[in-house]
Amino acid sequence: MRAWEKNFRKVEPYIPGEQPQFENMVKLNTNENPYPPSAKVAKELEELSRQTEKFRLYPDFKSRVLVDALALHYGLSSDQVFVGVGSDDVLSVAFLTFFNSEKPILFPDITYSFYDVWAKVYGIPYKCPALDEEFRIRREDYYGENGGIVIANPNAPTSIAEGLDFIEDILKHNRESVVVVDEAYVDFGAASALPLLGKYENLLIVQTFSKSRSMAGARIGYAMGHPSLIKAMNDVKYSINSYTMNYPALRLSVAAIEDDAYFRECCDRIIGTRERTRKVLCRLGFTCLESSANFLFATHGSVPAKKIFAALKERGIFVRYFEKPRIDNFLRITIGTDEQMEKLERALVDILGQ
Amino acid sequence: MRAWEKNFRKVEPYIPGEQPQFENMVKLNTNENPYPPSAKVAKELEELSRQTEKFRLYPDFKSRVLVDALALHYGLSSDQVFVGVGSDDVLSVAFLTFFNSEKPILFPDITYSFYDVWAKVYGIPYKCPALDEEFRIRREDYYGENGGIVIANPNAPTSIAEGLDFIEDILKHNRESVVVVDEAYVDFGAASALPLLGKYENLLIVQTFSKSRSMAGARIGYAMGHPSLIKAMNDVKYSINSYTMNYPALRLSVAAIEDDAYFRECCDRIIGTRERTRKVLCRLGFTCLESSANFLFATHGSVPAKKIFAALKERGIFVRYFEKPRIDNFLRITIGTDEQMEKLERALVDILGQ
Repeated sequence: MRAWEKNFRKVEPYIPGEQPQFENMVKLNTNENPYPPSAKVAKELEELSRQTEKFRLYPDFKSRVLVDALALHYGLSSDQVFVGVGSDDVLSVAFLTFFNSEKPILFPDITYSFYDVWAKVYGIPYKCPALDEEFRIRREDYYGENGGIVIANPNAPTSIAEGLDFIEDILKHNRESVVVVDEAYVDFGAASALPLLGKYENLLIVQTFSKSRSMAGARIGYAMGHPSLIKAMNDVKYSINSYTMNYPALRLSVAAIEDDAYFRECCDRIIGTRERTRKVLCRLGFTCLESSANFLFATHGSVPAKKIFAALKERGIFVRYFEKPRIDNFLRITIGTDEQMEKLERALVDILGQ
Repeated sequence: MRAWEKNFRKVEPYIPGEQPQFENMVKLNTNENPYPPSAKVAKELEELSRQTEKFRLYPDFKSRVLVDALALHYGLSSDQVFVGVGSDDVLSVAFLTFFNSEKPILFPDITYSFYDVWAKVYGIPYKCPALDEEFRIRREDYYGENGGIVIANPNAPTSIAEGLDFIEDILKHNRESVVVVDEAYVDFGAASALPLLGKYENLLIVQTFSKSRSMAGARIGYAMGHPSLIKAMNDVKYSINSYTMNYPALRLSVAAIEDDAYFRECCDRIIGTRERTRKVLCRLGFTCLESSANFLFATHGSVPAKKIFAALKERGIFVRYFEKPRIDNFLRITIGTDEQMEKLERALVDILGQ
């Protein structure tokens, strides 16, 4: 080991889903949207191509156009909105900003696998109460003293959503720490905690353009909360990188948010495909947890998930498999187009020999 | 104070230069390039506008197209290149990755004012040896024990560059910690430490697309160093945000890097304007430090900098003024187009009553 390597930060990085690049592959492994972004995004890019002189300038470090568009969309004031480079950036800044207590923060044992990575990299103590037998969050586990709470709703990779009463119950029991509700998948059928914002100043809601808004490639996430939370996050953000949102991200995200009709149409279509796919999977011997997300979390009655995962991969169909306790017999299957899901069905019939 | 606010991270955020939005203003305050990016960038955007379906997918988290293009450009291998959201992101990751010693890191008292902000936010001990009377770095100050070294070359806001022998001397005296050379302004006339990379495994060079490549709005920075440094930075990066570089940034930066002729033409033009401007300023009673950057650091013989700063602002001309010890009688003036610098000259003649 070289002398200076002793001072390297020790980390266990998050491992993102594979990004394979095959012709005709069916990519159902990273919960991307199967539909392209709004046509307004293409129009905006075309306009941008005639305005490249703007690239020579720094973007607005307050990202006002996007902050204002989101505030308008959600009926908030602009000082209630924070934006970042995907919800990962937003969550990372939230962890760094809010979780500086000696008490552990709490999040479920089975949830988005980045939470413990951030806790480790920033030296935040944490505890992971176990989901119950049916993979649901036990609210009582979040009643005790803590340095903060993070709940994904719907949870991932379980796909299960809890109702507003559940989130409010956790807020009622936690008046002394920040409660982060990660709503990356909320637009696919769950209730957002937005109506609770006026009542709980310690609630932070995080959402993203990567799933329901078909813009994973643009890296845009946002948080909504009390102005004091948003200010604290911005102060930390300005202490790390003042200008995170590049000029195209600002322009394209505003174009996307303004096309609400298209957004709703895509979400509805995905929900329809999800329900059809669930029935197909049941018929093929799978059990799916009840999903409010753009993916299904499924386990087969007789064939191991790992085997199905590998067999699908051989056929050019990529789903997500987690080699982790309790969920290592499940597959997380992103909802694609109807055509993609029919390909999945044919492959599964073939693999399962039905 | 609300209960949870006790756990907020305490920070003193970096304050970026103003981004005023006036018609016909002359913006010489944030060291942006006065020329638009390469025409290839416009062409790439137009193409992108016909491929918006790609936005629905996550970008390649390894940013391979850009890493490979930079490696090719600088004659390095791809495992020697790290990319991030502007050089601020790159430097922030470097601080977090390399500076985990109990010993203080070292950087000059007068330098890029983000260094101490990162040190504070990440809890890194630091010391700031004073520049000498002529605003030059004293190499002996960097010979002692330390947890790391950060040298901006050319330094900012002084604009002064040190030669390769100077950088190598610091490297020779520091075999046990990482030495970061921040070359944000290197393309305007300084020597890059690139030739030293093969010899010093603890050298990290940081550059940016924001100045010489006219793309501050795209947020692209990069670091070059030994594969073990780059891997350590990527591990930390993947522990914070796997996908930092959005799809347009990856595409547009590659287009820009490929147009080397245009890049060199812009740099040469800026250097020419800088030298003409320096003469003008001297004639008007200013003293300018010797600049190898795209800005001049100037002090007037009789009129206080603060007064000139305010008078220029009234006339729609924005330069940078730092209300800080030792440099509070200096102005940092970005080199714009010849036309902009003529406007500056006329305003200064007016203000100084000459």
